[in-house]
Amino acid sequence: MSFEPDALKAFVNRYLDTVVNGSADDVAALYAEDATLEDPVGCGEVHIGRQAIAGFYKNLGGAELTTELLSFRPGGNEAAFIFAITVGGAMRIEPIEVMTFNSDGLITAMKAYWSPADVTQL
Amino acid sequence: MSFEPDALKAFVNRYLDTVVNGSADDVAALYAEDATLEDPVGCGEVHIGRQAIAGFYKNLGGAELTTELLSFRPGGNEAAFIFAITVGGAMRIEPIEVMTFNSDGLITAMKAYWSPADVTQL
Repeated sequence: MSFEPDALKAFVNRYLDTVVNGSADDVAALYAEDATLEDPVGCGEVHIGRQAIAGFYKNLGGAELTTELLSFRPGGNEAAFIFAITVGGAMRIEPIEVMTFNSDGLITAMKAYWSPADVTQL
Repeated sequence: MSFEPDALKAFVNRYLDTVVNGSADDVAALYAEDATLEDPVGCGEVHIGRQAIAGFYKNLGGAELTTELLSFRPGGNEAAFIFAITVGGAMRIEPIEVMTFNSDGLITAMKAYWSPADVTQL
């Protein structure tokens, strides 16, 4: 299974838009039922399933968010990208994320790579 | 298993230096015996094992290469990064790569995300 680069980029932009403008459940609805989410990678916690994933995004709730896609690379049914997210006008993080998509364009796996060194206080 | 960000960055820089200054076998020696390599992701070909990986790098042989690490993100025993590689002074590619390392610091999986749109003729 493979998507054209433009289709993958549209999935990623839809995700970044929904993080800003949607509810936690809206974001979770972009994931497959049995999807996995690891953010940040390496901290030992992997969120499994849409309900757990909604819980992860609820923890971001309340703050004003902005997102901006900085660099995008396609890869069949995967995509890797750098984006900036600002939280409450107070901090900016620039993770590298990798996503895998199923044939319905739903995210089956998301991994976000970043560390405290990638957080800027605004 | 987890590495400090500086250790992961040193692994990545060693890899980028070896791609420029080492032989294909030198680069393959940075991989675990049973490692996998997918470059570019999504084209259906995964190189499995150090011998196949050496063959992949031999195909790059001959041309003058330069590499430059542009952005780096740590993640436990993984790392994601953007780098630039120039080939024979004729083209420049900027992939996003993700690597996983074993406890010896050898690469167990490498995935490179890029497409023709990420290639610049120089």
